[in-house]
Amino acid sequence: MFCGLDIGGTKVLGLAVSPEDPVTPVATRRTATINDGDALIASMVEVINGLEADCGTTFSAVGVGVAGLVESTGMLRYSPNIDVVLDLDVRRRLREELRRPVVVDNEATAAAWAESHYGAARGARHVALVALGTGVGTGFVLDGRLYRGWNGFAGESGHMTIELSGPEHVTGASGPWEYYASGTGLGRLARQAAERGDFESATAAAGSVRAIRGEHVHDLVAAGEPDALAVLDEFCYYTAIGVANLVHVLDPEMVVIAGGLVEIGEPLVRGVETWTHRLVLGGSQRRRVQIVPAQLGSNASALGAALLAAENQY
Amino acid sequence: MFCGLDIGGTKVLGLAVSPEDPVTPVATRRTATINDGDALIASMVEVINGLEADCGTTFSAVGVGVAGLVESTGMLRYSPNIDVVLDLDVRRRLREELRRPVVVDNEATAAAWAESHYGAARGARHVALVALGTGVGTGFVLDGRLYRGWNGFAGESGHMTIELSGPEHVTGASGPWEYYASGTGLGRLARQAAERGDFESATAAAGSVRAIRGEHVHDLVAAGEPDALAVLDEFCYYTAIGVANLVHVLDPEMVVIAGGLVEIGEPLVRGVETWTHRLVLGGSQRRRVQIVPAQLGSNASALGAALLAAENQY
Repeated sequence: MFCGLDIGGTKVLGLAVSPEDPVTPVATRRTATINDGDALIASMVEVINGLEADCGTTFSAVGVGVAGLVESTGMLRYSPNIDVVLDLDVRRRLREELRRPVVVDNEATAAAWAESHYGAARGARHVALVALGTGVGTGFVLDGRLYRGWNGFAGESGHMTIELSGPEHVTGASGPWEYYASGTGLGRLARQAAERGDFESATAAAGSVRAIRGEHVHDLVAAGEPDALAVLDEFCYYTAIGVANLVHVLDPEMVVIAGGLVEIGEPLVRGVETWTHRLVLGGSQRRRVQIVPAQLGSNASALGAALLAAENQY
Repeated sequence: MFCGLDIGGTKVLGLAVSPEDPVTPVATRRTATINDGDALIASMVEVINGLEADCGTTFSAVGVGVAGLVESTGMLRYSPNIDVVLDLDVRRRLREELRRPVVVDNEATAAAWAESHYGAARGARHVALVALGTGVGTGFVLDGRLYRGWNGFAGESGHMTIELSGPEHVTGASGPWEYYASGTGLGRLARQAAERGDFESATAAAGSVRAIRGEHVHDLVAAGEPDALAVLDEFCYYTAIGVANLVHVLDPEMVVIAGGLVEIGEPLVRGVETWTHRLVLGGSQRRRVQIVPAQLGSNASALGAALLAAENQY
């Protein structure tokens, strides 16, 4: 049995994964992410020990996916969403605590590996996973192999500049992709539409323009509300700008849309697909890249991390 | 002996390359690029036959690098700079004419392969070559292997959107990287500076604001003219925006600056380096990507194409 952890900006998710049926976790635990290195390590150990108690087993190895710059050695250099934590050697610290093999990787990279083994990208050799959540994370399978880059920092594509004269993001950069294509970005687009008087259904649902969040767009899209569909289309356009950038750089055969926002479903995925095909160079002269929703849901990163742990072990 | 051809937007360059000393071509021929499929193939055959006559030999194989969307099968789907030519099966046509092995690839991809074997990127496992010329082409060596993508279209990074609300490029896209970071972009920045009255030395050198080209910036930078250095710095900033995007996506250890503009030399390369390190996420928490000038000059693509032909042969 293997353990997979996903350390996101807000939560730590832990899965106990059996090699016989990896997509159905034997046990699941969650806790809040703590923006402090020692406390974060302690909470990870607690989740792992808890999962072992749940299953009555000892894990052969532990895999961890983290949102941020994770070196191939397992050192977390910097995470925009856990910003107090710098240079935390997650792998060494967990190995000392657990005395068993530990693998640490970026959470979107781990999710890409899981989707390419057990999810939407089975059989595809060139895959870009695009996780739309608090920010935008990406992970790549290139020529059938997980791609990590020089430091292990590949796939920080949410920080690509797409609007140089655009507003300043929390990172200090101007107009990066994730400023627009994240859950935060969707909420902002919705509030801007409401301020123009173009999204009164959202104002009504939220109680005020200021209270509008991405979730309101989600609910109103599900109800087929035309103003919500217009806001979603604008969001899909911004998302597709970055997807098209990735297509120009990497020429993947498949883009897997993942992260919390994929719960919006078909209208999101079809919108991104339509815009991407309009934006890609020489669109009529090339095969259409497949744009598909992730299949493993919010478990993908933790599952991929467990898979990496299992592979490292054997 | 092998033949390498580079089919650019304006010229066809042919090299006769000996495996004993590949970086010193045995013979060189040039002709203008013809924007017509049949005539282009005929001119390529003429260059190859001419080189064979120059050397008194028969090439074992021919490699061709083309600026544009080239499929892994050797089919040129679309080239923004040879835009009448669509769906030209360069490999099949040349094989029929020459009756010997032919390899066709993108010219920046071929240049990246050459630089990683014989030039600036020897020994590096993760390399992005950025060719600044009429447009911006890129080629990648990832995990030590040439990366082509699903269709063979990887590295069309010049078409990444960096300024969504920016002006329309010749391709119809808004604010792509190559609108700014190409020779055309440098000339435009120089004319804009001159119009503001900030580049009178260029107006004097060119005779009028409208006549200012990138070459004038190059000459005045070489003379240390402060206004020219300011224009170059602006150009380096735009170039670095796209380089930083590539660093976020691919995490290369080295970026090789190639193409005609690299002749500007040290001030260009240092400017791009300075801006890139300011722009990259978590700059203080990561090793600095090396930004270096290409070493093989304008021969890189043709040399890389010859190298691919030689590898395919053995």
